[in-house]
Amino acid sequence: MEIKVLKDILGANEQIARKNHALLEQHGIFAVNIMASPGAGKTSLVLQTIKTLRSKLKVGVIEGDIASTVDAELVGKEGVPVVQINTGGECHLDANMIQNALNNLPLKSIELLLIENVGNLVCPAEFNLGEHMKALVASVPEGDDKPFKYPLMFTTVDAVIINKTDLLPYVKFNLEAFTKAIKAINAKVEIFPVSCTTGEGVQKWAEWLFARMRPAAAG
Amino acid sequence: MEIKVLKDILGANEQIARKNHALLEQHGIFAVNIMASPGAGKTSLVLQTIKTLRSKLKVGVIEGDIASTVDAELVGKEGVPVVQINTGGECHLDANMIQNALNNLPLKSIELLLIENVGNLVCPAEFNLGEHMKALVASVPEGDDKPFKYPLMFTTVDAVIINKTDLLPYVKFNLEAFTKAIKAINAKVEIFPVSCTTGEGVQKWAEWLFARMRPAAAG
Repeated sequence: MEIKVLKDILGANEQIARKNHALLEQHGIFAVNIMASPGAGKTSLVLQTIKTLRSKLKVGVIEGDIASTVDAELVGKEGVPVVQINTGGECHLDANMIQNALNNLPLKSIELLLIENVGNLVCPAEFNLGEHMKALVASVPEGDDKPFKYPLMFTTVDAVIINKTDLLPYVKFNLEAFTKAIKAINAKVEIFPVSCTTGEGVQKWAEWLFARMRPAAAG
Repeated sequence: MEIKVLKDILGANEQIARKNHALLEQHGIFAVNIMASPGAGKTSLVLQTIKTLRSKLKVGVIEGDIASTVDAELVGKEGVPVVQINTGGECHLDANMIQNALNNLPLKSIELLLIENVGNLVCPAEFNLGEHMKALVASVPEGDDKPFKYPLMFTTVDAVIINKTDLLPYVKFNLEAFTKAIKAINAKVEIFPVSCTTGEGVQKWAEWLFARMRPAAAG
Protein backbone atom coordinates (compact mmCIF):
# COMPACT_ATOMS: atom_id res chain seq x y z
CA MET A 1 0.00 0.00 0.00
CA GLU A 2 1.24 3.40 -0.91
CA ILE A 3 1.14 6.00 1.79
CA LYS A 4 0.14 9.50 0.84
CA VAL A 5 2.52 12.14 2.06
CA LEU A 6 1.13 15.66 2.11
CA LYS A 7 3.81 18.25 1.99
CA ASP A 8 3.35 21.85 2.87
CA ILE A 9 5.39 22.83 -0.17
CA LEU A 10 4.37 26.45 0.02
CA GLY A 11 3.81 28.13 3.33
CA ALA A 12 0.30 29.35 4.09
CA ASN A 13 1.21 32.96 3.28
CA GLU A 14 2.62 32.06 -0.13
CA GLN A 15 -0.49 30.02 -0.99
CA ILE A 16 -2.81 32.91 -0.23
CA ALA A 17 -0.46 35.35 -1.99
CA ARG A 18 -0.82 33.28 -5.18
CA LYS A 19 -4.60 33.36 -4.86
CA ASN A 20 -4.47 37.13 -4.43
CA HIS A 21 -2.27 37.42 -7.50
CA ALA A 22 -4.71 35.32 -9.56
CA LEU A 23 -7.65 37.46 -8.41
CA LEU A 24 -5.78 40.67 -9.30
CA GLU A 25 -4.86 39.27 -12.73
CA GLN A 26 -8.45 38.25 -13.34
CA HIS A 27 -9.50 41.88 -12.86
CA GLY A 28 -6.55 43.34 -14.75
CA ILE A 29 -5.25 45.05 -11.62
CA PHE A 30 -1.55 45.86 -11.19
CA ALA A 31 -0.63 45.91 -7.49
CA VAL A 32 2.35 47.65 -5.90
CA ASN A 33 3.52 46.82 -2.36
CA ILE A 34 4.98 50.05 -0.94
CA MET A 35 7.30 49.60 2.03
CA ALA A 36 9.40 51.99 4.15
CA SER A 37 10.52 53.05 7.59
CA PRO A 38 7.95 54.96 9.64
CA GLY A 39 7.69 58.49 8.34
CA ALA A 40 9.68 58.06 5.12
CA GLY A 41 6.70 59.29 3.11
CA LYS A 42 4.73 56.27 1.92
CA THR A 43 1.38 58.05 2.20
CA SER A 44 2.76 61.18 0.53
CA LEU A 45 4.01 59.05 -2.37
CA VAL A 46 0.63 57.32 -2.62
CA LEU A 47 -1.09 60.74 -2.78
CA GLN A 48 1.36 62.10 -5.36
CA THR A 49 1.04 58.95 -7.49
CA ILE A 50 -2.76 59.21 -7.43
CA LYS A 51 -2.60 62.87 -8.50
CA THR A 52 -0.14 62.15 -11.31
CA LEU A 53 -1.82 59.04 -12.75
CA ARG A 54 -5.52 59.55 -12.05
CA SER A 55 -6.20 60.98 -15.53
CA LYS A 56 -4.83 57.79 -17.11
CA LEU A 57 -5.85 55.09 -14.63
CA LYS A 58 -8.37 54.11 -11.98
CA VAL A 59 -6.44 53.88 -8.72
CA GLY A 60 -7.36 52.05 -5.49
CA VAL A 61 -5.51 51.94 -2.19
CA ILE A 62 -5.01 49.57 0.74
CA GLU A 63 -3.61 51.28 3.84
CA GLY A 64 -1.78 49.14 6.39
CA ASP A 65 -1.15 50.37 9.92
CA ILE A 66 -0.88 48.78 13.32
CA ALA A 67 -3.52 51.21 14.56
CA SER A 68 -5.39 54.36 13.44
CA THR A 69 -7.08 55.41 10.20
CA VAL A 70 -5.05 58.60 9.71
CA ASP A 71 -3.68 57.56 6.32
CA ALA A 72 -6.89 56.13 4.89
CA GLU A 73 -8.68 59.37 5.74
CA LEU A 74 -6.07 61.37 3.83
CA VAL A 75 -6.32 59.07 0.82
CA GLY A 76 -10.12 58.96 1.00
CA LYS A 77 -10.22 62.72 0.42
CA GLU A 78 -8.83 62.06 -3.07
CA GLY A 79 -12.07 60.22 -3.88
CA VAL A 80 -10.43 56.88 -4.66
CA PRO A 81 -11.56 53.54 -3.18
CA VAL A 82 -9.57 52.82 -0.02
CA VAL A 83 -9.56 50.14 2.67
CA GLN A 84 -7.68 50.49 5.96
CA ILE A 85 -6.13 47.39 7.51
CA ASN A 86 -5.31 47.68 11.20
CA THR A 87 -2.93 44.86 12.01
CA GLY A 88 -3.50 45.25 15.76
CA GLY A 89 0.15 44.83 16.69
CA GLU A 90 1.48 42.84 13.73
CA CYS A 91 4.56 44.48 12.26
CA HIS A 92 3.78 43.74 8.60
CA LEU A 93 0.95 43.06 6.16
CA ASP A 94 0.43 39.44 5.12
CA ALA A 95 -1.40 37.82 2.23
CA ASN A 96 -4.42 36.93 4.34
CA MET A 97 -4.99 40.57 5.32
CA ILE A 98 -4.79 41.53 1.66
CA GLN A 99 -7.28 38.81 0.72
CA ASN A 100 -9.77 40.32 3.18
CA ALA A 101 -9.07 43.82 1.88
CA LEU A 102 -9.60 42.73 -1.75
CA ASN A 103 -13.01 41.37 -0.74
CA ASN A 104 -13.87 44.86 0.42
CA LEU A 105 -12.75 46.81 -2.64
CA PRO A 106 -14.63 47.46 -5.92
CA LEU A 107 -12.13 45.47 -8.01
CA LYS A 108 -13.89 46.24 -11.29
CA SER A 109 -13.18 49.94 -10.73
CA ILE A 110 -9.44 49.57 -10.06
CA GLU A 111 -6.53 49.29 -12.48
CA LEU A 112 -3.65 50.27 -10.21
CA LEU A 113 -3.71 49.13 -6.58
CA LEU A 114 -1.28 50.85 -4.22
CA ILE A 115 -0.72 48.86 -1.02
CA GLU A 116 0.90 50.85 1.78
CA ASN A 117 2.59 48.43 4.16
CA VAL A 118 3.25 48.95 7.89
CA GLY A 119 6.19 51.32 8.52
CA ASN A 120 9.02 48.85 9.05
CA LEU A 121 12.24 48.23 7.12
CA VAL A 122 12.54 44.61 8.24
CA CYS A 123 9.57 42.26 8.49
CA PRO A 124 7.41 43.39 5.51
CA ALA A 125 10.24 42.29 3.17
CA GLU A 126 9.58 38.67 4.15
CA PHE A 127 5.92 38.48 3.15
CA ASN A 128 4.62 38.32 -0.41
CA LEU A 129 1.13 39.73 -0.71
CA GLY A 130 0.40 38.65 -4.30
CA GLU A 131 1.58 41.99 -5.66
CA HIS A 132 3.20 42.61 -9.06
CA MET A 133 5.93 44.87 -7.78
CA LYS A 134 7.63 45.90 -4.55
CA ALA A 135 8.75 49.48 -4.00
CA LEU A 136 10.73 50.98 -1.13
CA VAL A 137 10.47 54.59 -0.03
CA ALA A 138 13.77 55.63 1.53
CA SER A 139 14.12 59.19 2.82
CA VAL A 140 17.05 61.58 2.90
CA PRO A 141 17.01 62.36 6.66
CA GLU A 142 17.23 58.62 7.48
CA GLY A 143 20.83 58.67 6.25
CA ASP A 144 22.74 56.96 3.46
CA ASP A 145 23.93 53.88 5.42
CA LYS A 146 20.63 51.99 5.32
CA PRO A 147 21.38 49.46 2.53
CA PHE A 148 24.14 47.93 4.69
CA LYS A 149 21.87 47.65 7.70
CA TYR A 150 18.68 46.38 6.06
CA PRO A 151 19.99 44.29 3.16
CA LEU A 152 16.94 42.05 2.65
CA MET A 153 14.62 45.01 2.09
CA PHE A 154 16.98 46.65 -0.39
CA THR A 155 17.51 43.42 -2.35
CA THR A 156 13.80 42.49 -2.42
CA VAL A 157 12.43 45.59 -4.13
CA ASP A 158 12.05 46.53 -7.80
CA ALA A 159 12.23 50.27 -7.19
CA VAL A 160 13.63 52.60 -4.55
CA ILE A 161 12.09 56.04 -4.27
CA ILE A 162 14.45 58.39 -2.42
CA ASN A 163 12.05 60.88 -0.87
CA LYS A 164 12.57 64.27 0.81
CA THR A 165 15.29 65.44 -1.59
CA ASP A 166 14.21 68.98 -0.61
CA LEU A 167 16.05 68.33 2.70
CA LEU A 168 19.39 67.53 1.00
CA PRO A 169 20.85 70.99 1.78
CA TYR A 170 20.18 70.55 5.51
CA VAL A 171 21.40 67.02 6.28
CA LYS A 172 24.43 64.83 5.68
CA PHE A 173 23.40 62.55 2.83
CA ASN A 174 25.55 61.44 -0.10
CA LEU A 175 23.05 60.66 -2.88
CA GLU A 176 25.73 59.17 -5.12
CA ALA A 177 27.11 56.90 -2.40
CA PHE A 178 23.57 55.82 -1.45
CA THR A 179 22.70 54.96 -5.06
CA LYS A 180 25.95 53.06 -5.47
CA ALA A 181 25.35 51.07 -2.25
CA ILE A 182 21.86 50.07 -3.40
CA LYS A 183 23.07 49.05 -6.88
CA ALA A 184 25.86 46.98 -5.30
CA ILE A 185 23.35 44.66 -3.61
CA ASN A 186 20.53 44.97 -6.17
CA ALA A 187 21.82 45.67 -9.68
CA LYS A 188 18.38 45.60 -11.37
CA VAL A 189 16.64 48.10 -9.10
CA GLU A 190 15.31 51.41 -10.45
CA ILE A 191 16.03 54.46 -8.33
CA PHE A 192 13.97 57.64 -8.27
CA PRO A 193 14.99 60.68 -6.22
CA VAL A 194 11.80 62.65 -5.46
CA SER A 195 10.36 65.25 -3.15
CA CYS A 196 6.73 64.60 -2.33
CA THR A 197 6.66 68.09 -0.79
CA THR A 198 7.72 70.01 -3.91
CA GLY A 199 6.63 67.33 -6.40
CA GLU A 200 10.10 67.16 -7.96
CA GLY A 201 10.87 63.78 -9.57
CA VAL A 202 7.35 62.38 -9.03
CA GLN A 203 6.49 62.55 -12.76
CA LYS A 204 9.47 60.38 -13.66
CA TRP A 205 8.50 57.71 -11.09
CA ALA A 206 4.87 57.75 -12.21
CA GLU A 207 5.80 57.45 -15.90
CA TRP A 208 8.07 54.50 -15.18
CA LEU A 209 5.35 52.81 -13.14
CA PHE A 210 2.82 53.37 -15.92
CA ALA A 211 5.22 51.96 -18.53
CA ARG A 212 5.78 48.93 -16.36
CA MET A 213 2.02 48.34 -16.06
CA ARG A 214 1.29 48.95 -19.72
CA PRO A 215 4.39 48.17 -21.76
CA ALA A 216 2.44 48.46 -25.03
CA ALA A 217 0.62 51.73 -24.33
CA ALA A 218 3.73 53.41 -22.98
CA GLY A 219 6.10 52.11 -25.68
CA MET B 1 -0.64 10.07 42.74
CA GLU B 2 -0.16 13.73 42.13
CA ILE B 3 0.92 14.75 38.70
CA LYS B 4 3.47 17.49 38.38
CA VAL B 5 2.47 20.21 35.99
CA LEU B 6 5.31 22.40 34.82
CA LYS B 7 4.08 25.74 33.66
CA ASP B 8 6.07 28.07 31.52
CA ILE B 9 5.00 31.00 33.69
CA LEU B 10 7.52 33.34 32.17
CA GLY B 11 8.44 33.02 28.55
CA ALA B 12 12.04 32.14 27.74
CA ASN B 13 12.87 35.74 26.84
CA GLU B 14 11.56 37.10 30.13
CA GLN B 15 13.52 34.50 32.11
CA ILE B 16 16.79 35.44 30.43
CA ALA B 17 15.94 39.15 30.76
CA ARG B 18 15.67 38.70 34.54
CA LYS B 19 19.06 37.00 34.60
CA ASN B 20 20.55 39.85 32.60
CA HIS B 21 19.03 42.34 35.02
CA ALA B 22 20.49 40.51 38.01
CA LEU B 23 23.93 40.44 36.36
CA LEU B 24 23.75 44.16 35.62
CA GLU B 25 22.68 44.92 39.19
CA GLN B 26 25.50 42.81 40.56
CA HIS B 27 27.97 45.03 38.69
CA GLY B 28 26.17 48.28 39.46
CA ILE B 29 25.43 48.86 35.78
CA PHE B 30 22.44 50.94 34.66
CA ALA B 31 21.25 49.81 31.21
CA VAL B 32 19.18 51.80 28.73
CA ASN B 33 17.40 50.15 25.78
CA ILE B 34 17.35 52.74 22.97
CA MET B 35 14.78 52.13 20.26
CA ALA B 36 13.74 54.04 17.13
CA SER B 37 12.83 53.89 13.46
CA PRO B 38 15.75 53.40 11.08
CA GLY B 39 17.67 56.65 10.76
CA ALA B 40 16.02 58.55 13.63
CA GLY B 41 19.43 59.09 15.23
CA LYS B 42 20.02 56.35 17.80
CA THR B 43 23.75 56.18 17.14
CA SER B 44 24.05 59.97 17.15
CA LEU B 45 22.30 60.06 20.53
CA VAL B 46 24.60 57.33 21.85
CA LEU B 47 27.64 59.35 20.73
CA GLN B 48 26.30 62.60 22.20
CA THR B 49 25.43 60.86 25.48
CA ILE B 50 28.94 59.39 25.74
CA LYS B 51 30.50 62.82 25.11
CA THR B 52 28.29 64.51 27.69
CA LEU B 53 28.58 61.93 30.48
CA ARG B 54 32.07 60.42 30.04
CA SER B 55 33.62 62.74 32.60
CA LYS B 56 31.16 61.49 35.23
CA LEU B 57 30.66 57.84 34.29
CA LYS B 58 32.21 54.85 32.57
CA VAL B 59 30.04 54.11 29.54
CA GLY B 60 29.72 50.89 27.51
CA VAL B 61 27.69 50.21 24.39
CA ILE B 62 25.90 47.30 22.71
CA GLU B 63 25.08 47.95 19.05
CA GLY B 64 22.25 45.96 17.49
CA ASP B 65 21.86 45.71 13.73
CA ILE B 66 20.58 43.10 11.31
CA ALA B 67 23.87 43.36 9.45
CA SER B 68 27.02 45.53 9.31
CA THR B 69 29.33 47.01 11.95
CA VAL B 70 28.97 50.63 10.82
CA ASP B 71 27.64 51.84 14.16
CA ALA B 72 30.03 49.90 16.40
CA GLU B 73 32.97 51.34 14.44
CA LEU B 74 31.68 54.88 15.03
CA VAL B 75 31.21 54.23 18.74
CA GLY B 76 34.54 52.42 19.03
CA LYS B 77 36.32 55.60 17.94
CA GLU B 78 35.17 57.15 21.22
CA GLY B 79 37.34 54.64 23.07
CA VAL B 80 34.50 53.03 25.03
CA PRO B 81 33.89 49.26 25.23
CA VAL B 82 31.47 48.22 22.50
CA VAL B 83 30.02 44.96 21.20
CA GLN B 84 28.16 44.66 17.91
CA ILE B 85 25.26 42.21 17.68
CA ASN B 86 24.27 41.24 14.14
CA THR B 87 20.84 39.66 14.37
CA GLY B 88 21.11 38.13 10.91
CA GLY B 89 17.58 38.97 9.87
CA GLU B 90 15.85 39.24 13.23
CA CYS B 91 13.95 42.52 13.54
CA HIS B 92 14.71 43.15 17.21
CA LEU B 93 17.19 42.42 19.99
CA ASP B 94 16.19 39.77 22.51
CA ALA B 95 17.42 38.92 26.00
CA ASN B 96 19.50 35.98 24.79
CA MET B 97 21.50 38.19 22.43
CA ILE B 98 22.13 40.62 25.29
CA GLN B 99 23.26 37.77 27.55
CA ASN B 100 25.89 36.85 24.95
CA ALA B 101 26.93 40.47 24.56
CA LEU B 102 27.29 40.92 28.35
CA ASN B 103 29.65 37.93 28.37
CA ASN B 104 31.84 39.83 25.93
CA LEU B 105 31.99 43.18 27.74
CA PRO B 106 34.29 44.27 30.62
CA LEU B 107 31.40 44.65 33.05
CA LYS B 108 33.63 45.91 35.87
CA SER B 109 34.56 48.91 33.74
CA ILE B 110 31.00 49.95 32.89
CA GLU B 111 28.51 52.04 34.88
CA LEU B 112 26.14 53.11 32.11
CA LEU B 113 25.32 50.62 29.34
CA LEU B 114 23.65 52.04 26.24
CA ILE B 115 21.94 49.35 24.14
CA GLU B 116 21.07 50.45 20.61
CA ASN B 117 18.27 48.24 19.32
CA VAL B 118 17.51 47.36 15.68
CA GLY B 119 15.85 50.24 13.80
CA ASN B 120 12.20 49.28 14.09
CA LEU B 121 9.25 51.01 15.75
CA VAL B 122 7.27 47.80 16.26
CA CYS B 123 8.91 44.54 17.35
CA PRO B 124 11.62 45.76 19.78
CA ALA B 125 8.86 47.13 22.05
CA GLU B 126 7.76 43.55 22.78
CA PHE B 127 11.07 42.23 24.14
CA ASN B 128 12.52 43.04 27.54
CA LEU B 129 16.30 42.79 27.58
CA GLY B 130 16.82 43.14 31.32
CA GLU B 131 17.38 46.88 31.00
CA HIS B 132 16.56 49.52 33.63
CA MET B 133 14.98 51.96 31.25
CA LYS B 134 13.57 52.15 27.73
CA ALA B 135 14.05 55.24 25.58
CA LEU B 136 12.64 56.06 22.17
CA VAL B 137 14.33 58.34 19.67
CA ALA B 138 11.68 59.94 17.47
CA SER B 139 12.77 62.36 14.77
CA VAL B 140 11.18 65.49 13.38
CA PRO B 141 11.17 64.49 9.66
CA GLU B 142 9.25 61.28 10.49
CA GLY B 143 6.19 63.40 11.20
CA ASP B 144 4.03 64.05 14.23
CA ASP B 145 1.43 61.31 13.67
CA LYS B 146 3.55 58.41 14.91
CA PRO B 147 2.07 57.94 18.44
CA PHE B 148 -1.27 56.99 16.87
CA LYS B 149 0.29 54.49 14.50
CA TYR B 150 2.78 52.80 16.84
CA PRO B 151 1.01 52.95 20.22
CA LEU B 152 2.82 50.06 21.94
CA MET B 153 6.24 51.64 21.40
CA PHE B 154 5.10 55.02 22.70
CA THR B 155 3.41 53.51 25.79
CA THR B 156 6.33 51.20 26.62
CA VAL B 157 9.08 53.80 26.98
CA ASP B 158 10.21 55.95 29.92
CA ALA B 159 11.60 58.74 27.76
CA VAL B 160 11.10 60.07 24.25
CA ILE B 161 13.95 62.01 22.69
CA ILE B 162 12.68 64.10 19.78
CA ASN B 163 15.73 64.38 17.57
CA LYS B 164 16.57 66.57 14.56
CA THR B 165 14.90 69.70 15.94
CA ASP B 166 17.28 71.62 13.67
CA LEU B 167 15.03 70.50 10.77
CA LEU B 168 11.86 72.03 12.32
CA PRO B 169 11.99 75.08 9.97
CA TYR B 170 12.00 72.85 6.87
CA VAL B 171 9.30 70.25 7.56
CA LYS B 172 5.71 70.08 8.72
CA PHE B 173 5.93 69.05 12.36
CA ASN B 174 3.85 70.35 15.25
CA LEU B 175 6.02 69.83 18.34
CA GLU B 176 3.21 70.78 20.71
CA ALA B 177 0.70 68.41 19.09
CA PHE B 178 3.29 65.61 19.06
CA THR B 179 4.08 66.10 22.77
CA LYS B 180 0.38 66.16 23.58
CA ALA B 181 -0.27 62.96 21.62
CA ILE B 182 2.53 61.14 23.44
CA LYS B 183 1.35 62.34 26.86
CA ALA B 184 -2.20 61.24 26.05
CA ILE B 185 -1.13 57.58 25.79
CA ASN B 186 1.78 57.69 28.25
CA ALA B 187 1.29 60.31 30.97
CA LYS B 188 4.50 59.48 32.87
CA VAL B 189 6.92 59.74 29.96
CA GLU B 190 9.68 62.37 29.89
CA ILE B 191 10.15 64.20 26.60
CA PHE B 192 13.40 65.80 25.41
CA PRO B 193 13.58 67.79 22.16
CA VAL B 194 17.20 67.63 20.97
CA SER B 195 19.38 68.08 17.93
CA CYS B 196 22.26 65.63 17.85
CA THR B 197 23.68 67.70 14.99
CA THR B 198 23.88 71.02 16.86
CA GLY B 199 23.94 69.48 20.35
CA GLU B 200 20.93 71.52 21.46
CA GLY B 201 18.96 69.86 24.28
CA VAL B 202 21.44 67.01 24.76
CA GLN B 203 22.66 68.34 28.12
CA LYS B 204 19.16 68.29 29.53
CA TRP B 205 18.61 64.67 28.48
CA ALA B 206 22.00 63.61 29.86
CA GLU B 207 21.39 65.34 33.20
CA TRP B 208 18.00 63.69 33.57
CA LEU B 209 19.50 60.28 32.74
CA PHE B 210 22.29 60.80 35.27
CA ALA B 211 19.80 61.84 37.98
CA ARG B 212 17.74 58.76 37.24
CA MET B 213 20.81 56.53 37.64
CA ARG B 214 22.12 58.25 40.75
CA PRO B 215 19.20 59.88 42.58
CA ALA B 216 21.39 60.69 45.60
CA ALA B 217 24.39 62.16 43.76
CA ALA B 218 22.20 64.26 41.49
CA GLY B 219 19.89 65.50 44.25
